[in-house]
Amino acid sequence: MSAEIITIGTELLNGLGRDTNGARIAAMLASIGIEVHYQTTVGDDASRMADVFRAAAHRAQVVITTGGLGATSDDLTRKTIATVFRRRLVLDEAVLDHIRARFRVRGIEMPAINEAQALVPRGARIIENPRGLAPGLHFTHLETDYFSLPGVPAEADAMMEGYVLPYLRARRPAIPATRRVVRTVGVSESVLAERLRTVEAEEERIRVGYLPHIHGVDITLAPIAPDLAWMEDVLDRCERRVRELAGEHAFGSEGDTLSAVLGALLLERRATLATAESFTAGAVGATITATPGASRYYLGGIIAYSNRAKQELLGVRATTLERHGAVSAEAAEEMAAGARARFDCDVALSSTGIAGPDGGSAEKPIGLVYFGVATAEGVRSARFVLPGTRAEITGRSVAYLLDLARRQLAPAAV
Amino acid sequence: MSAEIITIGTELLNGLGRDTNGARIAAMLASIGIEVHYQTTVGDDASRMADVFRAAAHRAQVVITTGGLGATSDDLTRKTIATVFRRRLVLDEAVLDHIRARFRVRGIEMPAINEAQALVPRGARIIENPRGLAPGLHFTHLETDYFSLPGVPAEADAMMEGYVLPYLRARRPAIPATRRVVRTVGVSESVLAERLRTVEAEEERIRVGYLPHIHGVDITLAPIAPDLAWMEDVLDRCERRVRELAGEHAFGSEGDTLSAVLGALLLERRATLATAESFTAGAVGATITATPGASRYYLGGIIAYSNRAKQELLGVRATTLERHGAVSAEAAEEMAAGARARFDCDVALSSTGIAGPDGGSAEKPIGLVYFGVATAEGVRSARFVLPGTRAEITGRSVAYLLDLARRQLAPAAV
Repeated sequence: MSAEIITIGTELLNGLGRDTNGARIAAMLASIGIEVHYQTTVGDDASRMADVFRAAAHRAQVVITTGGLGATSDDLTRKTIATVFRRRLVLDEAVLDHIRARFRVRGIEMPAINEAQALVPRGARIIENPRGLAPGLHFTHLETDYFSLPGVPAEADAMMEGYVLPYLRARRPAIPATRRVVRTVGVSESVLAERLRTVEAEEERIRVGYLPHIHGVDITLAPIAPDLAWMEDVLDRCERRVRELAGEHAFGSEGDTLSAVLGALLLERRATLATAESFTAGAVGATITATPGASRYYLGGIIAYSNRAKQELLGVRATTLERHGAVSAEAAEEMAAGARARFDCDVALSSTGIAGPDGGSAEKPIGLVYFGVATAEGVRSARFVLPGTRAEITGRSVAYLLDLARRQLAPAAV
Repeated sequence: MSAEIITIGTELLNGLGRDTNGARIAAMLASIGIEVHYQTTVGDDASRMADVFRAAAHRAQVVITTGGLGATSDDLTRKTIATVFRRRLVLDEAVLDHIRARFRVRGIEMPAINEAQALVPRGARIIENPRGLAPGLHFTHLETDYFSLPGVPAEADAMMEGYVLPYLRARRPAIPATRRVVRTVGVSESVLAERLRTVEAEEERIRVGYLPHIHGVDITLAPIAPDLAWMEDVLDRCERRVRELAGEHAFGSEGDTLSAVLGALLLERRATLATAESFTAGAVGATITATPGASRYYLGGIIAYSNRAKQELLGVRATTLERHGAVSAEAAEEMAAGARARFDCDVALSSTGIAGPDGGSAEKPIGLVYFGVATAEGVRSARFVLPGTRAEITGRSVAYLLDLARRQLAPAAV
């Protein structure tokens, strides 16, 4: 069974927007063993949309579209379905009631324009939209299942999870996991590839892939040809070998985040955490709290962007700033120690550095960063020179700092 | 002149990777007035790649592919070009020297496998790769220009800027800006569409589009058919009208961010800023400092995730927490006032709320948030109930809080 994803919207093709639905929906389909062969993005143009809908009809058993279900004149998905699959649009009273009710809750009369969202191609099933106005649509045409979902990610996700995945799962036999992912941080793709060369040599039935992100590299293991009899064992053995060879750099599997892994370690040790951030300016705290339940270990932090804040709120000494500067190992260590004392916590993390685009010098270039980790055993710091833009240096720094904390808390794994 | 983008890689379709090249290349093409009509993603599969290359050949004057130029057996772009366009692959000695030299610099003998990257379809021009191994390829087939670039974003960008854009620009007349963007915050797409209905009615030659993001809605104005004689004037008039009708919600144009707009207002008034964050946990600070030069006005912040931190670091009173709770207008106001005193700054912003997925109640549901703004004139707060996931509630909150500050500082525009 192969699938095709069609994302609709002129904004996705003119540089103003960016599609995120395609990758997320592909991941959901992969999780139930359905391969996506094509993903196409097309603008809000009736003839080009029809062209893409027809091409998909010829080559996929499952077609999922996102977007074009809004109320304005450039929302053309309903109309295109009607044209391509010859299904008349009919006003659905239940859908109209749902839309009216959602406006009522907000104390607004439904604008007349929104009535269009209650038009449904004849014979299509309604996919309820608990988070928004327009329902999704599902119909079958010549053995192909079509699902049209809204472009709003949260609405599309809710329909995938509540309707599309259960529907497809019920029509397929249970399949085992067809891949393994080992997530790493702090090591480059080519160094990893050198280390893991033996894995590929030892096991020809497994393909090893490398997927670099800003925060690290994911190693993927997939069988060359799926064969249920041997696959699981071979994947298990390869995964163990990859973890051995990647060593301290391996922090988790598919779906794991550094933030969640660190959170689990803190909970296990009943330890509390605080942060002292200079150039990352809250990005570390925001990443830690992206994990639900972070309030069980994260107490808070100081964003000490100015030198005065470093001195007054974190107790960094004036002589440290004079002699070594705010971007120094000494400052990072005093910041971490200061945050640990201030929040009366077990572990405190600090960051100070130069993210650019200005502020670099020959001695202290853009990308120079120092991180501190303070625990009951004392304070440690680490220095890196990171490549990339302001946003990339910040993003990589968050990962490197969380990784330092992870290693500190899990010394057995090092 | 219309373009098509093809991004190649199985990892882009199985949920492990995510394409970023398509949106970036589309934005670059838009900047020189070239419309992208389709973007297709296809896996590392020779027959499906050929299928997509052929479809593009029929409908675009410019085709840009990324990916599939590596050295391993699943890199099939060169081979597919040879098949589809009947061009034999020839070993290019100059390219081979370049690849060997790059290995030599790293003290490594070139692996035999990399020789494949020096194969060039007969008649194709080489696009040099200053940042990596594989060169890009450019050839013309039946009036269509094909550019094959590597999948690594930095390498693809360098070739777009160094070769593809100059080449295309030289073949097109200078074109004026073909669109306007008015960015808004704090108002829904359908309410905006109702307000702006007259703009579409008054000027049939302009298409009005709505692009909702987590933080707000972008309104786009584009001519139905480009016509240099009248376009600029009509777009200017429409843009003025849209700004009038959108009112206080309009905060900027294409490329503007709330963070940068707020930063400019602060600089203009020589005012300094600090933050006091509870559930956003640093996301507000990180967004403010995403604007280069933020150190000229942003002093820092307190992430007061725990109630104890709210009391000890921001001076929130115990009685406030007991009577009203940490998620209340009173707490938000005391947090903002506390941060303003602590940092001795002109403006302080605060956030407190419930981002979920747990912690909601009938009285205080998930999505309930309060924001505070403290200035010399006093402290104000605002209350919202925001929809969405934990990440969406946080993201929207950052925008709403920065917007409150923007309006406070620019009362003339309200």
